[in-house]
Amino acid sequence: MTKIGIIGATGYVGAELLRLLLSHPKVEIAALSSVSFEGQEISNVYKNFLNKTNLVCETAEDVIEKSDVIFTALPHGLSEDIAKKAIDSNKICIDMGADFRLSNEEEYELWYGKKFTQPEIHASSIYGLPELNRAKIKECSLIANPGCYPTTIELGLMPLLKNSLIKLDNIICDSKSGTTGAGRGLTLNTHFPEENETFAPYKVGAHRHTPEIEETLSVMAKEKVNVTFTPHLLPINRGILSTIYCSTKDTVNLEEIHKLYVAAYKDEPFVNVLPLGEIASIKNVRLTNDCHISLHLNHRKDQIIVVSTIDNMVKGAAGQAIQNMNIILGFEETDGLNLIAPAF
Amino acid sequence: MTKIGIIGATGYVGAELLRLLLSHPKVEIAALSSVSFEGQEISNVYKNFLNKTNLVCETAEDVIEKSDVIFTALPHGLSEDIAKKAIDSNKICIDMGADFRLSNEEEYELWYGKKFTQPEIHASSIYGLPELNRAKIKECSLIANPGCYPTTIELGLMPLLKNSLIKLDNIICDSKSGTTGAGRGLTLNTHFPEENETFAPYKVGAHRHTPEIEETLSVMAKEKVNVTFTPHLLPINRGILSTIYCSTKDTVNLEEIHKLYVAAYKDEPFVNVLPLGEIASIKNVRLTNDCHISLHLNHRKDQIIVVSTIDNMVKGAAGQAIQNMNIILGFEETDGLNLIAPAF
Amino acid sequence: MTKIGIIGATGYVGAELLRLLLSHPKVEIAALSSVSFEGQEISNVYKNFLNKTNLVCETAEDVIEKSDVIFTALPHGLSEDIAKKAIDSNKICIDMGADFRLSNEEEYELWYGKKFTQPEIHASSIYGLPELNRAKIKECSLIANPGCYPTTIELGLMPLLKNSLIKLDNIICDSKSGTTGAGRGLTLNTHFPEENETFAPYKVGAHRHTPEIEETLSVMAKEKVNVTFTPHLLPINRGILSTIYCSTKDTVNLEEIHKLYVAAYKDEPFVNVLPLGEIASIKNVRLTNDCHISLHLNHRKDQIIVVSTIDNMVKGAAGQAIQNMNIILGFEETDGLNLIAPAF
Amino acid sequence: MTKIGIIGATGYVGAELLRLLLSHPKVEIAALSSVSFEGQEISNVYKNFLNKTNLVCETAEDVIEKSDVIFTALPHGLSEDIAKKAIDSNKICIDMGADFRLSNEEEYELWYGKKFTQPEIHASSIYGLPELNRAKIKECSLIANPGCYPTTIELGLMPLLKNSLIKLDNIICDSKSGTTGAGRGLTLNTHFPEENETFAPYKVGAHRHTPEIEETLSVMAKEKVNVTFTPHLLPINRGILSTIYCSTKDTVNLEEIHKLYVAAYKDEPFVNVLPLGEIASIKNVRLTNDCHISLHLNHRKDQIIVVSTIDNMVKGAAGQAIQNMNIILGFEETDGLNLIAPAF
Repeated sequence: MTKIGIIGATGYVGAELLRLLLSHPKVEIAALSSVSFEGQEISNVYKNFLNKTNLVCETAEDVIEKSDVIFTALPHGLSEDIAKKAIDSNKICIDMGADFRLSNEEEYELWYGKKFTQPEIHASSIYGLPELNRAKIKECSLIANPGCYPTTIELGLMPLLKNSLIKLDNIICDSKSGTTGAGRGLTLNTHFPEENETFAPYKVGAHRHTPEIEETLSVMAKEKVNVTFTPHLLPINRGILSTIYCSTKDTVNLEEIHKLYVAAYKDEPFVNVLPLGEIASIKNVRLTNDCHISLHLNHRKDQIIVVSTIDNMVKGAAGQAIQNMNIILGFEETDGLNLIAPAF
Repeated sequence: MTKIGIIGATGYVGAELLRLLLSHPKVEIAALSSVSFEGQEISNVYKNFLNKTNLVCETAEDVIEKSDVIFTALPHGLSEDIAKKAIDSNKICIDMGADFRLSNEEEYELWYGKKFTQPEIHASSIYGLPELNRAKIKECSLIANPGCYPTTIELGLMPLLKNSLIKLDNIICDSKSGTTGAGRGLTLNTHFPEENETFAPYKVGAHRHTPEIEETLSVMAKEKVNVTFTPHLLPINRGILSTIYCSTKDTVNLEEIHKLYVAAYKDEPFVNVLPLGEIASIKNVRLTNDCHISLHLNHRKDQIIVVSTIDNMVKGAAGQAIQNMNIILGFEETDGLNLIAPAF
Repeated sequence: MTKIGIIGATGYVGAELLRLLLSHPKVEIAALSSVSFEGQEISNVYKNFLNKTNLVCETAEDVIEKSDVIFTALPHGLSEDIAKKAIDSNKICIDMGADFRLSNEEEYELWYGKKFTQPEIHASSIYGLPELNRAKIKECSLIANPGCYPTTIELGLMPLLKNSLIKLDNIICDSKSGTTGAGRGLTLNTHFPEENETFAPYKVGAHRHTPEIEETLSVMAKEKVNVTFTPHLLPINRGILSTIYCSTKDTVNLEEIHKLYVAAYKDEPFVNVLPLGEIASIKNVRLTNDCHISLHLNHRKDQIIVVSTIDNMVKGAAGQAIQNMNIILGFEETDGLNLIAPAF
Repeated sequence: MTKIGIIGATGYVGAELLRLLLSHPKVEIAALSSVSFEGQEISNVYKNFLNKTNLVCETAEDVIEKSDVIFTALPHGLSEDIAKKAIDSNKICIDMGADFRLSNEEEYELWYGKKFTQPEIHASSIYGLPELNRAKIKECSLIANPGCYPTTIELGLMPLLKNSLIKLDNIICDSKSGTTGAGRGLTLNTHFPEENETFAPYKVGAHRHTPEIEETLSVMAKEKVNVTFTPHLLPINRGILSTIYCSTKDTVNLEEIHKLYVAAYKDEPFVNVLPLGEIASIKNVRLTNDCHISLHLNHRKDQIIVVSTIDNMVKGAAGQAIQNMNIILGFEETDGLNLIAPAF
């Protein structure tokens, strides 16, 4: 059994990762850390772990020492130093924060307000979207696990971009996320009576996932891509659905594009291209590592609408991190991730 | 007191209209009709009316006879004949269905699968968006009350279109509605366990509100407008929010456009243009006749994002119908509509 | 127009009171206060007030000076001094907190951890349950507005207790409340992802409303009453429903008891005893000052089940406070409270 | 691999059973049946099964023929004949409906309006509450899987009843269930806009689970037990929580009773008695086969409050059925049921 450590285990992403890894057939959790709850049993912080694990929160140092694979689930800016230590000790590090997602330090500074603290290890990190970078991930020991919104958009657009079918200056991503994406920190926006029975966008034109989306789409297109990205907050717990509007270079033949998508993803264990006529819905991916994609026409002839949905906590965070680990360690890619969404 | 009749009082729109009119200072409800519940007290169908009214559901004929103003809240195709009778008896008719919303019979047939049954009265009907057609509404006795989605989009875009600031071939309307928009009819999509905790678009590229939106926007622009319109279903009861993406002809000066909106709507009792930096949210318009609009920039310089939100049952249906009635009868436009959203 | 002041206007109860009073035909809001938001417009704190009022938060002193009737919506322990000042200035004070609800200082100290700070004014205060104390309220200038849970239970049991029909040592009140009852303060329990899709009791056997319920029921019974009271938190915004189990002294004749209830409440504008066979439901009282009561038999012959429901923010707080004000000022008791629940 | 069949696979209980069994390590699904969807792929009825299984709905006869263990998930009254055929073919039958839950035919007729159609096989059936009947279940081939509400109440009270600690004529069970308990059939009560943001009891004093609860509690007490049972509908998908009020024969020593519960359930894989001071909550058992029980005192000295919660679709239906199958087949009792609740 490979020994796993989770740094930042008491945030939502850390807790979800723990939940999933406790059912993984080939790993064991060696240690957890939490600054806020050091010394406490995790089942005291999250009651769902009662009688499921006796693990106690330790320090980050303890976790690095005891583990072969280290997952970091920390606010941005706090993973770099830990990753450095992990790499220096020949461990694998999978960062679920934003520290290694942008390759360009200036862009990072622009959006996150700080420079890289460990610039020398950035070059060796790989953006952990398996459908794009599987071969590189296999050889890598420092993974930048993708953001939740970007995962929906990047998987939703990859076949169009790789085949140069759409215009790169008119991509509109209207994305909607459940509240777990905002984490466990208390805010008025996520106070139940304020968030229940309402809906609104937030950070319009200013969300930090924008440069990540643009960088990855540009890699796919081999050209600079600009997107309009608007996140909205849904009064549900889990799930992201992105409705993506693209202008095509030619008149759309939806059946051909659908075939292209089916072919592009036919060997992917977690990406399902729905039959034409069906519409992707959050409920069918909830609590799974799956991404569902549906393709649609408007009556305009040079536009395609892509609907792409995932569970933000699984394929959008902890599940994709496990998928990356499975690839690196040579496990079955679906180990620990054979999940079926509850129908209700 | 003006005598009011509601035909189709036991659907959601009819019931909401009744609720609002019972508090209107200048009218009294003379009669209600319902095919399914004829002979029953409305408070037996909707328990919220217990001890609030003793009205009993009668026939449509009874309603026409007893009322000065007749509101029709019927499935499409059923209002035309009633409107004809009402007009012939010199009554006012406000149709909350789709029968008179499209001026073009071919377009109507294309989307609704039938021809006009009373073609001669269509010419005298007015599209009841007061912010666009107030003067005409005043002189009219047959109102086509706007659809819920169209109201958000039309109010959201009117100043841009009237001032020819945006391109007419690249308008994208990503709209999200609460479940009351689907009405009282039972469907699997609105079965609680199926709709709760999920989110998805529906009728992508094929919703019947599309031609209504395009016709009205074209009137505003004095040119043919095409829109991409995607409706989504939110797991909440009330409210619609549309996120609208427009390509501008010139580089956007957001402050100037904001001034334009403020000026355009400064005398409108129900349209609020939010200060720059704020974001429109369903909760602040819920249970009111208000429309909140906020304006946003992306980093693209030739695009503006408009967020427009209403309560689909009030400004999107029953409230706007009352507003039209107030205008026709020479009442204060806000009579019966001085509503403040519950903060929670 | 009577001049009204609200002290503590930015908590949920204060904001709800403001919303309701802005539609009251016979009063005007003279001033608001808030410690946290002094100097700010209330519409900046609660966006639903945008364009509905320009009121700015002032100090408590300002409010007392400018107003004839002062409502206090404060955490327990903070209303006494303000009430003293108001009384000394010959103003009317309606306290929506707990400071004057218990007549017994020892009981108060036991549950609230402090003694009365203005013991001399307690004797002149009246518990503001109009259905019990209307005559006394009329003559009073210091009202202890009832708690939300107690209102459901007291109205639910009054006819049984006044007629000595039930045993006083075996009353079980299983109560469920929406989240607005917990107020605007941020807690993990009311963090959306933690409260959504779950349900649990809280403070079992230890909720501060217990002594208030017992004192008032004892007044009704003219004998000491003990209750078992268990509050639960519902994942909805508004509404309380109490399911109350009573052992009767004799075999139950449900029709006779129903007649007794109907007679007891026949002149009450806000209490509706449902026909036998119907079941009270939160949705029919939401956003109103109404209390719905339904009566039920189990197969046990010496037990009656009473279901009693209100909107916790209206009849359970701000609405009942207005009802008390209307009584004191000689207005129609329903002024500003002619509200019909939205059916959906 | 043992061959499994599900009769009635397209109802909520059948679909949940399929979801869970697809991850069971020691069985394979041989066949499904559905009257309404015969001939269709189950993934066409429930989209969450897309790419998870290709199973097609067949007839009940097909299922019986192809399977070693047959689960019936049918409306009451339809399982008896199928069970007869299964038994006659030496198969195991686990009925998730009500047909075999009551041993007394008169009681059954009273509540279900019909007599037993296969009276001779009733004697060989066992009530499948493993914590009560494990030894008998092991030897049995016809299981009456318990109802959802009864499971919470029976597990919640078993230690008190077996030790004769409470009075048997004053047990009050106030139970609250998510909407999946009502199944997939469309009703106005479970129409989203009608059920969202509300709460109410239903079938007060008249729910069919009452005789099942009373029969099983009587077995535990070895004496006739009567309960007051009130079900309520929660606006959530999953979970039941029962708040149970018992009068004790002596003054309560909560710590001793807690010890008794801990001892009673210490070898039970799915029943967790929470530490004193904690309160059971639906969210910690959601999507698991666990039952959480917490014990509480009121200030009354002769009363104990038990809070008991399960996921109605798992321990309350499909999960418990699998637990019964595991026992009969000699598997680990937790096979396929090692589930951890999502924390959010």
